[in-house]
This record gives sequence, structure tokens and C-alpha cells, in this order.
Amino acid sequence: MAETLIKVDLKQSPYENDMVHNRWHPDIPIVAWVKPGDDFKIETYDWTGGYIQNNDSADDVRDVDLTTVHFLSGPIGVEGCEPGDLLVVDILDIGAKEDSLWGFNGFFSKKNGGGFLTDHFPLAQKSIWDIKGMFTESRHVPGVKYAGLIHPGLIGCLPDPKLLEEWNKREIDFINTDPDRVPALGCPPCAPTAHMGRLKGEARDKAAAEAARTVPPREHGGNCDIKDLSRGSRIYFPVYVKGGGLSMGDLHFSQGDGEITFCGAIEMAGWLHLRVNIIKDGMKKYAVKNPIFKPSPITPKYDDYLIFEGISVDEQGKQHYLDVHVAYRQACLNAIEYLKKFGYSGAQAYSILGTAPVQGHISGVVDIPNACATLWLPTDIFDFDIMPTEAGPQKFLDGSVQMPISEDV
Amino acid sequence: MAETLIKVDLKQSPYENDMVHNRWHPDIPIVAWVKPGDDFKIETYDWTGGYIQNNDSADDVRDVDLTTVHFLSGPIGVEGCEPGDLLVVDILDIGAKEDSLWGFNGFFSKKNGGGFLTDHFPLAQKSIWDIKGMFTESRHVPGVKYAGLIHPGLIGCLPDPKLLEEWNKREIDFINTDPDRVPALGCPPCAPTAHMGRLKGEARDKAAAEAARTVPPREHGGNCDIKDLSRGSRIYFPVYVKGGGLSMGDLHFSQGDGEITFCGAIEMAGWLHLRVNIIKDGMKKYAVKNPIFKPSPITPKYDDYLIFEGISVDEQGKQHYLDVHVAYRQACLNAIEYLKKFGYSGAQAYSILGTAPVQGHISGVVDIPNACATLWLPTDIFDFDIMPTEAGPQKFLDGSVQMPISEDV
Amino acid sequence: MAETLIKVDLKQSPYENDMVHNRWHPDIPIVAWVKPGDDFKIETYDWTGGYIQNNDSADDVRDVDLTTVHFLSGPIGVEGCEPGDLLVVDILDIGAKEDSLWGFNGFFSKKNGGGFLTDHFPLAQKSIWDIKGMFTESRHVPGVKYAGLIHPGLIGCLPDPKLLEEWNKREIDFINTDPDRVPALGCPPCAPTAHMGRLKGEARDKAAAEAARTVPPREHGGNCDIKDLSRGSRIYFPVYVKGGGLSMGDLHFSQGDGEITFCGAIEMAGWLHLRVNIIKDGMKKYAVKNPIFKPSPITPKYDDYLIFEGISVDEQGKQHYLDVHVAYRQACLNAIEYLKKFGYSGAQAYSILGTAPVQGHISGVVDIPNACATLWLPTDIFDFDIMPTEAGPQKFLDGSVQMPISEDV
Amino acid sequence: MAETLIKVDLKQSPYENDMVHNRWHPDIPIVAWVKPGDDFKIETYDWTGGYIQNNDSADDVRDVDLTTVHFLSGPIGVEGCEPGDLLVVDILDIGAKEDSLWGFNGFFSKKNGGGFLTDHFPLAQKSIWDIKGMFTESRHVPGVKYAGLIHPGLIGCLPDPKLLEEWNKREIDFINTDPDRVPALGCPPCAPTAHMGRLKGEARDKAAAEAARTVPPREHGGNCDIKDLSRGSRIYFPVYVKGGGLSMGDLHFSQGDGEITFCGAIEMAGWLHLRVNIIKDGMKKYAVKNPIFKPSPITPKYDDYLIFEGISVDEQGKQHYLDVHVAYRQACLNAIEYLKKFGYSGAQAYSILGTAPVQGHISGVVDIPNACATLWLPTDIFDFDIMPTEAGPQKFLDGSVQMPISEDV
Repeated sequence: MAETLIKVDLKQSPYENDMVHNRWHPDIPIVAWVKPGDDFKIETYDWTGGYIQNNDSADDVRDVDLTTVHFLSGPIGVEGCEPGDLLVVDILDIGAKEDSLWGFNGFFSKKNGGGFLTDHFPLAQKSIWDIKGMFTESRHVPGVKYAGLIHPGLIGCLPDPKLLEEWNKREIDFINTDPDRVPALGCPPCAPTAHMGRLKGEARDKAAAEAARTVPPREHGGNCDIKDLSRGSRIYFPVYVKGGGLSMGDLHFSQGDGEITFCGAIEMAGWLHLRVNIIKDGMKKYAVKNPIFKPSPITPKYDDYLIFEGISVDEQGKQHYLDVHVAYRQACLNAIEYLKKFGYSGAQAYSILGTAPVQGHISGVVDIPNACATLWLPTDIFDFDIMPTEAGPQKFLDGSVQMPISEDV
Repeated sequence: MAETLIKVDLKQSPYENDMVHNRWHPDIPIVAWVKPGDDFKIETYDWTGGYIQNNDSADDVRDVDLTTVHFLSGPIGVEGCEPGDLLVVDILDIGAKEDSLWGFNGFFSKKNGGGFLTDHFPLAQKSIWDIKGMFTESRHVPGVKYAGLIHPGLIGCLPDPKLLEEWNKREIDFINTDPDRVPALGCPPCAPTAHMGRLKGEARDKAAAEAARTVPPREHGGNCDIKDLSRGSRIYFPVYVKGGGLSMGDLHFSQGDGEITFCGAIEMAGWLHLRVNIIKDGMKKYAVKNPIFKPSPITPKYDDYLIFEGISVDEQGKQHYLDVHVAYRQACLNAIEYLKKFGYSGAQAYSILGTAPVQGHISGVVDIPNACATLWLPTDIFDFDIMPTEAGPQKFLDGSVQMPISEDV
Repeated sequence: MAETLIKVDLKQSPYENDMVHNRWHPDIPIVAWVKPGDDFKIETYDWTGGYIQNNDSADDVRDVDLTTVHFLSGPIGVEGCEPGDLLVVDILDIGAKEDSLWGFNGFFSKKNGGGFLTDHFPLAQKSIWDIKGMFTESRHVPGVKYAGLIHPGLIGCLPDPKLLEEWNKREIDFINTDPDRVPALGCPPCAPTAHMGRLKGEARDKAAAEAARTVPPREHGGNCDIKDLSRGSRIYFPVYVKGGGLSMGDLHFSQGDGEITFCGAIEMAGWLHLRVNIIKDGMKKYAVKNPIFKPSPITPKYDDYLIFEGISVDEQGKQHYLDVHVAYRQACLNAIEYLKKFGYSGAQAYSILGTAPVQGHISGVVDIPNACATLWLPTDIFDFDIMPTEAGPQKFLDGSVQMPISEDV
Repeated sequence: MAETLIKVDLKQSPYENDMVHNRWHPDIPIVAWVKPGDDFKIETYDWTGGYIQNNDSADDVRDVDLTTVHFLSGPIGVEGCEPGDLLVVDILDIGAKEDSLWGFNGFFSKKNGGGFLTDHFPLAQKSIWDIKGMFTESRHVPGVKYAGLIHPGLIGCLPDPKLLEEWNKREIDFINTDPDRVPALGCPPCAPTAHMGRLKGEARDKAAAEAARTVPPREHGGNCDIKDLSRGSRIYFPVYVKGGGLSMGDLHFSQGDGEITFCGAIEMAGWLHLRVNIIKDGMKKYAVKNPIFKPSPITPKYDDYLIFEGISVDEQGKQHYLDVHVAYRQACLNAIEYLKKFGYSGAQAYSILGTAPVQGHISGVVDIPNACATLWLPTDIFDFDIMPTEAGPQKFLDGSVQMPISEDV
């Protein structure tokens, strides 16, 4: 039986667990060493470290301190692993913790985090999803059930000092182009809430002041929120420090492409079962800059789709130049309007797009000036038929079930 | 046997065929009427109307007059179809013309069209793809073979005057923000090369001066270049004019998400076999603004992938805000560098990404400031194994075969 | 454009076309030679050579002379191909003839052919299926539509004299164990109706007297009726005579596993586009006795199933020992009874099982004394929902449409 | 969290657990009651109740007393469930027990059990498979790894007295046609080793004397060994007694169609997470005689196949009449001979066919006298390429690893 190298106690603050950290920095000490070929287990908190609760109020989503996230487990060192190598990680399995068989999805307030459709959904909202074996369903979003495409939203190796410096420079330069923007353009280092793992004292303070936040995905992978990097996949990570320093967290039971609800997918605490190997000097051999991966042989089959198109003309009718972000937003808004015809509230429809195994495709990106994006809505997740018919849509939901919402304070 | 309502003769100029047009305008006369439930065939030119030849020079790609494209067949009228309806189109089949069993792919010169990676591939290049039954292979790009995911790059209904005016206003306003840009920000109306079908004389000239170009996808669908809108799919089109006025063209034997090579997919002349039906008042019933569709039950199975990530930090290391376009470009460049390790030239690798059934996913679009996009490269299209191994990549190609290239003049 | 090596004229008797034959014998002269790597086209009659007509009477199914079938096109010789080699055949495409866009399905009378469920359906019946692009539907079987999984029911290389002798001996010995059985135990040689291609005169008569009938599948492949040996697949055939001598016919637009209706799948005249290659001495290298194959990358996706079980206890409650034939019959009968609850006649349900891309699995074959077989009914082929619900089945069909039936005479 | 209604202690004899039984009889008392809509967990022994050990000797496979199997957990009663209903069972998940992360596969001695290829492999052999997350691999069968298609080999409801009597009569009549056959034609009741759950004393003895053995699949489902009845599937069971009386066991981590190795698939102890519902009077409403089911949305994707054909001519060249059992045996033998060319022993190849997600199709069953069966070998389970090439097969294995074998005593 595989050893559990890192355990987390959901009743304990993640700040008290020194095998957890919430920043990226080369000096964060490796907490456990393994050998190539070893398999082992790692437990993780949910990304907020337990702040969001299984209840019917969105206050916690509204109030969460986003400088604290994401709580990661690690770093793990692999013997013989050196900068320039590829660290090959087989995700043998992922699951929720037995004492925590639920997850949450939500939208942040526009004043605290925002999200993809924050102009349309500016207030904090939340839905709770029960995990029943391989499936999930929500008391706040009726009429849907999905098998989980379970994955870590966040996984990657520690940066070296040079890469860290590059991250800090480009992001802070960027934030400085519009420093007062709400939501902000980026997340600068933030020492007070930094959890630097086993790094203590002065060394901790120095590193915390410059440690990269975990929010954006970067060259090492990190917070990619790629739903297909799921259990059963094999990932090839660039290595920058001796031992690799692999950390992970932000487990998702299910998510749609784009993680458009931001808070987030179906977020959960849980565990991963991993196996590691090394391709020596693999970064150069294969010209690898960002991680590459082979998806899992075992994923839910939701392959009957109704597909929505969007183009890069925004809600005000303004033209954007080959802007896939705008185009995908339009496709999402089109899908939400469609689902409302069956009785969903806009918020419920938005939640479905954020949590179901929805695909978002970059369909056309050269036909000036319009990008075209498509949103692929799986039809088998619904209890009823959502295809168009001559008779028109039937309202299957009566609106009696709604998602919790919290006014800004 | 289904009747062929529109025939094209590839030896004749498309300007001489009055059942063809290359602009969108409500006044373009419907050339054939059908009834709901009818099935029928339509022949089409390739999008350039035969300008690009099956030879080993890229001069035609360099020199093509892009104000002439795309040559569409139609418009077809459907009895009883009225504004506000959804026109339901079943694509029963699509094929190449028997006397033209080949297609082309290319990159435009940066000075005449450009494209997704025009800064990396600024000169005109071309590859020719032979169609052998359901498969294609190229004498210019060795080592790959694919079954065709055949689709119309361009299909949609005529706009009404109000929609046309909206298109013109927003696009011309936009072009005017940087009118001298190369490549241009958009394609304004261009009367001289307009082919207005059966509209003649003064009426033709008036309409040609304001008719929308066919390049961008818009609310009606149009040039969406969605590879999955393939034969066997069912599409629900918004209707703006009496009869619908369905036109189509720009057939592709195969294409990757994004059609990143712009010129284009594997472009071909051919035919479509369609069936049409109507959902009365469907736009309002289902809140449909852009077309929606159900993909085909019969598509090539290329479901073993190697996946490349890209983030919205550009080639110069500059930070962009949740910009999926930049992120996808990085994923594509990463894939090209990877394929070069197996012996492909950059241009060949770029061609593969433009022509193979590559998927482009919007993987993360909320983790400020980085968007994350993924490029899914199907591994079964290659004659050799392209997965990473401990031994490193093997050069399967010796570089003796290259793609035609033409210097700017 | 690929050359058509063998043409058939559907208005001409197949006996008048000397590039056609209906028996297996080493002496049948090769009618066209190709080289390894060549691709070419072959036209074929339907298996009955045009006897079954597109009409609303089953008389032709009742009266057909089964000693005349199957009319094959060939043999094709491949230069350099020798006994012991594997002949690698890529089926690049298959289609119906443009002047014959329909197919037939039927059940033989128990007195002339019989079939899998002949005790339940003892009379001749027929359904006609129209081919509309990649899809088919029938005026005799409402409520279903499928994309075609098009394949040759029959394809293989000529036997050598030794193999032919082995076939004749084992089959005639077997027939002789119950020579008067109806339906017969096997199909012995039958000279009068033999079509020996270009073999004429005395040589023809001698060969016709010993030539193997085309009905059963044998070591060389032949009449395997494997629905998955479809266009896009690659087959490795054992070679017994110089040049290989590849012949084929019995094209099916669609068929279920088992071809349980016997007459047959959706039977059609059409063409194949093939490419051939050779693996020298491949039979020994790979221990190949029967053909092996790699299925197509492009097949219809009907992957939502309702699955029926059957065990090897027959309709009279009698126990059979691990008899998969009996078990599959029970699974089929169970499916037919189920479909009748939605308004289908038994004959229509039987036709669906024979023509749709139904899977038949050997699920358990060791749990004495019962074999367990499963029939996988694709649910997406139906216009309505056939899954069980608490409310019970809805009768979607009113019985006004029925299949032609013909009494025995 | 779902309640575990039945627990098993792998260190305790199953005979000591009164929530376990190894026979089918209406009088076996229900051990736990649930309500429609409830979800709950059930633990089970492996089918032999722990007799087969994780070691490198096949003695236990040789010596096992087959009158003791299969040890089932149950019966579970569902409130309101009555004869004639359909019991709807959602398999929400299945897993191995944490303290028993391995499974076994083996062939019985021909003298004690036999199996599908017992004439070719007459001695007891065994392989042990480690379970690593969602994957399995064996120290006795190198070069393969598969994700688990986890399923209960055996699940079903209690028979009523009438059905039990029917089973006994037809099977005993059948055994009596050749009572001394080895292996036997069937498994008659056997009181001494019967475990009748909570039925005790005289009632137990009476019932044990007539209780049906669990070996064959029957009308109620039972030991179907259908690999696709896996976690995530929904099954509709016929109900014969008040409460239903659902029992289950014989968990398989992975199995090929046919379970040809008989002992068995990859056999394991574990748990199921189920949800139950009722369709009142569903047997009649839907004409259900045997269980029907909808397969899981989440199964391993092994969809690249090399397919082997077999016909109903046996190893001695003898002709059989449309005998799918013989045909499938030939397809299996063909696959074994093929795999031996890559260095596998025959026993290892046989084990792969028994344990991997191999498909067995009834391909043709009407072309007298030969049935045609196909065995679909997934190619992605191998560490190396097993497709045929012009160069011939490469021996990847050196024969240094072999499967334990035990001589008969």
C-alpha cells in the first residue's frame, strides 16, 4: 500500500501544517524525498484551506481573504532530479477525503476577486455539490448530475531564483500599468499571509516578501486549472531546482473549460496517488518550456453536445480584434440565455458551465476581426432533454430552488 | 437521388456563375427554392474560386487578391421560412469534386493577409494535400496522414438591412482606430471585386458598395471555420430574411481548431448534401443569437493526444491580461518547437497544426493575469511515435522534403 | 484520381460480367494486376446480383435462388505477392453507386435460407432503406435513422488447392451428418449456377464442380460479415496463391453484430477504394491463420446503449452448455419484446437489430452451464427516448406502417 | 457519508459472517433494509472467500473447493419492492479494500474446474495483479498495464420458489445427460458447503439441499461476469420476492469479454456504493425477463484495437454449426499465437486475454455452417508496439518472467 507522505487535518488551520505552503519560492524546504519509480499519496486542503463551508450562505465566498490562497501540499523531492530534467508524474488516482464528501462552487463579488462574468453576476453566490461515489449533484442546482473528471487545479515544481525574478518583474510591471483597477490586474507578493512551509524566521520573511503568488499559471504549470490533467494522466514537468520540488493542491471534482466561475470548479479537499520518474535533460531534448501531458485513459464519457458559438463582439456591440476571451464570453452568455428557457436562473446556468465537463474551443482565430469560440455543453448531464424541438423548450424547473447570494457589505 | 441545385464548373471563373456570390447583402437574389424536409446538393468552388493551384510554388498564395474571397454558392430559399425562425440544416454529407481530389494549405505573406503566426512565418508558403478516399496526405509534409473531418468553413443566412448596417458600423469604426495597420484590422466593403450573384446593374453597384465582406464570422454564423460543424452535424441558423437565404462555401477536408494557418485548412472545391427544416419563431423560443449545433455522429477518432500548454506571456516575455489568443499562440509555438525535434521544419509543423484535427481548448481564463490555453495534438496521425521517452526524440525526417516558399516581391 | 479496375452495370446480369465470380477456386483467373502501394477502385453488385428490388413486396426475398450468391468482383493480383505473405489492404473508402442509393434488408423463408430467428419469423419479409448522404432510413421501419458503418460483408484471397480440398472435405462430411435438414447444414459445390469469372469451357466445368460456395467465412476471411471491417480499416489477409487474388462484394451500408437477419444487413451495390501492400512471409512471422485487422479511425459514434442479456437456456426452457449462439438469440428476443412495447412489430424490431450498429458481446463463456451474451442497442438511432422510466413505455408508433411479408408458395 | 450496511473482515472466514451467503434461495433472510432513493455501501469478499493468496504458487488455485463459491454479501431488502417490479440499481462506485490492494487471475486444473482453453492449459496457473490507484500491473505478466473497468462479476435478486425449482429441474436434467463428465456439465446443489446467511438449523438444512449454486448466470442476472456492468452503470433487475433481496460479490478489477480464464478476471475483495430505486410492475411494462442495463459514463478508453477472427472450425479441423463458442475459442487461440511472437508464454498471453478489457464480438452467426467471432485486443495496454510491420515482430520479452504453475496431485 502506498505511503501517505503528507497528511492534512481538515480541522486544523493549514498555517499549522508545515508540509503545506501557499507561495512559490525556491527556498521553500522540501518536506519529503522519494525515488524515481516510487508511488505515494499526498493529502491536500481545498484551495481556501477550509474557509468555505458546506452551508446555505454565500457570505464566506464574499468574505474570503484571497491573499491566503492556494494551500498546496509539498514540496516533494525526487532523488537524482536536476534542473533541465523533465519530471514525469503519473496521477494514479485522486479522491475526496472520506470525511469531506462534498465540494463548493461560487462566484466572487466583483469587489473581491470577480470572475469571467463578473459584470453579469457581480455578487457573491455559492452552490454546494455532494459527492456520491463517482458522481456529484447539488441541492442548489437541480436537474443535473455528473461523473467527476477529478483533477488538481494546481500542480508544478518550484521555480529557481531567476525564473521567480522574471515572474515578479513582468507581473509587477503589468500591475503598475493600472494599479487601482478592480478587479486587480495581478496578484503581487504579499508577505503577511504567506505560508512558507518549513521556512522559518528571517529566511521566511525575506522569501515571503518576494515569493510568487499561486494564482496565475506560469511556465512551470502551477494553477493551470486544466480539467483534462485528470487522474490517470501523465504529465512532464520542467525542473528548475534540485529534487524538483513538486507541490500540488486545489483539487477539483469537476470543472468546465475556462473555470469560468473562478470560485472555482467543484472545489474539494482530498488526496492524490502519484508515481514519479525522470527524463534526464528532457527540457532541451524535447524543447519543453511549459508542461506537456498525455490525458487519462479513464475519463467520463459526455460526448453528446449542444454547441454554442460566440464571436469577439462584446455585450455592447463593440468590435474586438481576434479576442478569444470576448468570444468565449459571448458563447457562455448565449448558453446561459438558452438554459434559462428551461427554467434555470442565470446563476444556476453559470454554475453548470463552471462545474460540468464543458468544453471551450478556440474555433477560429484568424478571420479578422472576429475570433470565434465555441462552448460545448454536454447534454447527458441533464435529467431532461435540452435539445431544440419544434415544440419549443419545456420549463422543467419551477424556480423554487435557488442559489445562495450575499450582498456586498 | 438528391437534385443538385447549384453546379460549379472549376474551369469557369466564379464571376461567371450567377448562383455564386462573395458578399453578404439582403438584396442578393435567392437562386433556388426548396421546401422544409427537402434534401438537395450544392456544389461549391474552393474559397479562392480556383486561384490556388495544385503545383509546387507558393506564388499564388503570395499574390492572391483577398478582396475576391470567399466564393459562396447560394442563396437558397426555404418556403415558409421567415425572420425570427431557426433554419435547421442537416449536413447529410460533404465531398470533394471527383475531378479535383486535392486541397491546399498555406500561410499568407505578412504583407498580404498574414495569419496567426505571421511574425514567425512572414512569407508565403504552401502545401498540397492529396485526397485518397477518406484520407489525405501531402507530398510537402511527410510522415502524417489523416481521415478528413470534412466541413464547410463558411455557411449562414443572409442578413437583413439592420444587421448589415450594424456590421458595417462596428467594423468600420474599428478599422478607423488604426487604419494603416498591416495586416489590417478588418475588411471593409469593396465594390470592384464584389460578386453579387444575380443582382445586376445599379442595384448591384449600390449593394456592392455596402455589402459585408465574408471574412469574419458574425451573428449569422458565416465564416466560423469550426472544424466540428462537419458532415453529419445539425445546425440551427438564425433567420433574418424571408426564405432564409442560405449560402455556403469554403469547404475544408480537415482543419485544426483556430485554422491558424489562415490559408487555410485543407481547402477544396466540392459539394454538400443538405436537408432543411424550420423551427418557427425559434430565435426567441430558444434565445438564439448565434447559430447553435449538434455535432456529427460520424467523425474521425483521433483521441490519443499529446497536449501542450501556453500562457498569456508573449514571445518577448511580456505579460497580457487573460488573453487566450496569446496563450494559444504560445501553445502552438511550443508544439512547433517540439515537432522540430523529430525532423520537421517549422513550416511543416505549423502546417500540421493548421490541417490536422488538432483541438484548441480555453483551459483557464480567470487566474489573473494569465490565461491558459491547450493545444491537443493527435498522436495517431503520425507514422512514428511522437511521445516523449527517456531515450529522447528520434529524427524520423531527414529534411529532404520541404514546403514551397515564395519571397515577397 | 484512382482508376476503377472493375466496373459493373446494374442493368446487366452479373453472369455477363467476366470480372465477377460467385465461387472460390484457385483457377479463377486474375482479372487485373496492381503493384504494392497502388490505390484503385472496384465496383460491385449487391450480393444477389440485383435480384432483390426496391419495391414493397417480399416475393423476391422468398424466391431468390441462393445457389447464385454472392457475386464478387475480382480477383485482383498484386505483383510480388506470394503464398505465405500477408496482403495488407487499406479500405480507403466505400460507397453506394450513384444510380442505386438504397439497400435492402430481409428475412428468408424458413424453407429457403432461414436465419437466426427463423423459428420466430418463418416467412419472407423485406424492408427498403434509402441512403441519404451518410445516413439511412426506411419507409418500412419508422422512427430510426443511422449513419452508415459501411463495409464489405465479403472479402478475401483465393484459396490454394490444398485449402480448397480441406474446406470441401470438412463441410461435405458435416452436411452428410444430416443431409436432409432444412435449413441445410451447409452449402455444397453447385456447378450449374457457378460463375467462374474468366474461366471457360472444360476448365470452368471442372472447377465449378469443386469450387467452394461463398456463404461461410473461412480461414481466408471471405463472408465474415464483420461490421467493423469498415471503410478506413486496414486488413492483413493470408495469401495462398501467386498474386493473392483478392475478391470482394456483399457491400453493407450498415449491419448489427451477427447479421442476424441473414438477408442480410442493408445490402447494396457500390464501390470500394483500396490500397494494397505486402508483408513478406507475414503468415509465419505473425502466426496468422485467419485475417487480422485494425478498425477504422472513422466510424459512427453510437455509444449510448441499452444492453440486453441472454443466457443459454432456450425458448422452451431447455438448458444448453455454454452455447453463445443460444444465449445471443435470447438477448435478441429480449430486445425485440422490449421494442414491441414502443409500438414496433416484431419484424420491425428484428430488422433494427439486423441493420443498426448493434453490438453483440460474448460476455461470459465459462460459468457452467450458461453462456451469457449481451446485445447492445444504440439509443441514439431512435427518434424518441427508449430508456425505461417509472412512467412506463410510450407507444410512439401506431402500427400503421408495416414491413412487406410474403407467404410461402 | 453513505453507511456501510455490510462489512467483511478478510481475516475472518466468510462462513462466520452471517451477512454473507453462497447459494440462491428465497428463504435466505434479508440482512438489511433500505428505502428507494437511499445510497449505501456493501463490502464483499473475493469470490473464494480469501482462499487464493498473494504469493507465487498456484497450489491454491489447484486445490480450491469449488463447491464453496461464490461468497456474496446480502441480501438487501428495499422497502416497497414487490415481485414484478424492476429494481433499479445505480452502481455509484466500486473499489478494492484498502488493506487488500491486489487481485488474482488463474486457470483451474482440468480436473478441478477447467475453463475455456482447458485442453490447451490443463494445469493450475496463477498471476497476481497489484492495484495502483486506477491501474493494475502484474509481477507475473510483464509489459502490460491497464486502468480498471471495475465491476461485480455477480449481482442479482433472490429467486422465488417457482424460479428456483425451474433452475434445479433444467440443470439437473442436463447434468444427468452425462453425469460423469469432467469438467461437469453443471453444478448441482451441495448442502455441506452451503452458507445460507442467517438461515439456521433445520430450515437451513432444508434450503441448503435445494439452493441453487451461484456459478451460472440465470434469469435474475447472477454470475453474468459482464465486464461492462461496471461502476457508474445503471441496472434494472427483475424482482421475484418481497424486498427484492439483492446480493452481490465476485468483484473484478478488470476482465475481458468471456472471462475466459475462469479463475477468473482480476479477482478482488472490495466494496460497492449503490443507490436503489423501483419501477413498479416494470417487468411487464417493459417485457423484461433478464436484467437490462445502461453502461457507465466513466470507463477506461482503450479504443485502439488489433482484431482477431475465429470461425467455428475447431483445433482438429472439425466443422461445427454456427457455434460461436468454438469460433471465439479460435479467435482467442489466434491471438495467443500472435502474442507469443513478441516473447510471451502461452499462459501469459492467455492471462492477458482474461484480464484486459478485451472485447469478444459475435460477428457473424448466419453464414452456414461457420459462425465468426472476433476478439478485440486493445493495443494501448502494452508497453510496446504490437501492430504488424514489414520488419516482423520484435521479441520484447526474454522469457525470464513466468507464471506459477502447479502439477496435478
